[in-house]
Amino acid sequence: MRLPLDHPATPAIVLVRPQMGENIGAAARAMWNFGLDRMRLVAPRDGWPNPAAVAMASGAGRLLDEAMLSGDLPGAVGDCDFVFATTARSRDLTKPIYSPEAAMALAAEKIACGQRVAVLFGPERAGLENEDIARANAIISVPVNPKFASLNLAQCVLLVGYEWMRQAGEITHASTEMAGTDWARGEEVEHLAAHYDERLTQAGFFFPEHKAQSMRTNLRNMWSRMPLTRADVQMLHGVMRQMVRWAKRDD
Amino acid sequence: MRLPLDHPATPAIVLVRPQMGENIGAAARAMWNFGLDRMRLVAPRDGWPNPAAVAMASGAGRLLDEAMLSGDLPGAVGDCDFVFATTARSRDLTKPIYSPEAAMALAAEKIACGQRVAVLFGPERAGLENEDIARANAIISVPVNPKFASLNLAQCVLLVGYEWMRQAGEITHASTEMAGTDWARGEEVEHLAAHYDERLTQAGFFFPEHKAQSMRTNLRNMWSRMPLTRADVQMLHGVMRQMVRWAKRDD
Repeated sequence: MRLPLDHPATPAIVLVRPQMGENIGAAARAMWNFGLDRMRLVAPRDGWPNPAAVAMASGAGRLLDEAMLSGDLPGAVGDCDFVFATTARSRDLTKPIYSPEAAMALAAEKIACGQRVAVLFGPERAGLENEDIARANAIISVPVNPKFASLNLAQCVLLVGYEWMRQAGEITHASTEMAGTDWARGEEVEHLAAHYDERLTQAGFFFPEHKAQSMRTNLRNMWSRMPLTRADVQMLHGVMRQMVRWAKRDD
Repeated sequence: MRLPLDHPATPAIVLVRPQMGENIGAAARAMWNFGLDRMRLVAPRDGWPNPAAVAMASGAGRLLDEAMLSGDLPGAVGDCDFVFATTARSRDLTKPIYSPEAAMALAAEKIACGQRVAVLFGPERAGLENEDIARANAIISVPVNPKFASLNLAQCVLLVGYEWMRQAGEITHASTEMAGTDWARGEEVEHLAAHYDERLTQAGFFFPEHKAQSMRTNLRNMWSRMPLTRADVQMLHGVMRQMVRWAKRDD
């Protein structure tokens, strides 16, 4: 049992670097229409709290009051077991791609098993960066008219919320008891990734220079994509620690 | 076959007595996101054409240019075989009620059989009158949070359009398979596992002795459980090779 009793079993909606307060307010309304009330904000452009957001959110203002504010993405999803990233464009990152329907069906299953799920939405203008997406476990792609894809932030949140309400209705929330696997949390995977990054940097892995960034992103992306248990994470830490110990045996 | 060849086989979206031009423009955008382009307007409050609608519709302005204008509802749906009315509140009228999903599945069937289908949306403030609904064959009720039902006109159109696109099968449902992914074959994972096993043995990882076997099994099990691509396998080989190179740098 991972969810405290006072915690609504719904996905967290994470707005990553949102720009306009109005859009944050509109996203809150879109969420609450479908019973989603756990908003998280990563580095909102105009600071927080934001009066324009409050004005727009009317009726859903509580979501803004209770929104979790974070300076960066890892801080916002560190306690999550599974993170979806919403994208409009296709990306080169190798990651499972779900329709909103399939994604929320999976989210409902995971939440029913006591896991914590988050959905990331990027800034209005350009969407999520590849670095953000590398921290997600899977992608949600909303199918739109290829000749005209102009969903705004709140509309994108709306469609995910709509599918959440549809899919969650079909799952019995009765059993939040988690039989079996103890999945690694986001922050644990984050530490693992940082550990490998640090040691591999030291070992000269990220070479040549001009490829270093994409090698880093690929490696980070792989950790997020793997269904890692806590035991896996411990073992992988151990693997790296032992290699370092071995490397330094003569020092 | 009732549809003229030059007419796209999609439902007509009928805005009944819309008030704000901005909302008409936003509805046009919402429609075109999901390939709907047949707009009909019944007695728009501020007349027609409406510059505020045009300004808002950017990119979907063609829908406004081609919108059919009608003074009353019967004139707007006279050529239709089946009419859905969207409502937020429940009504006393005895009429089949569909979810957006079921409604658009039915619409897709009917349209495939050559019928003409329309969906009515009411004025922003109060929605459709019972008199309007009486002219419809069925009702579409969008399931929302009973504590907060605040969908605006364009959002309501958006959800119906989204379901149309899903049901009409115009989209390839985003597969949960990763399109184009080059998965590692069993023997490649086997080689990877052997590589790690060999080097970790050398580095003294499998210690203490009495735990060595279960550590080996856990590690081997993890490799098999991970959804590894060929690129992942190459990267993981590279990680280990580099750690070994680093370890041996002084030899």
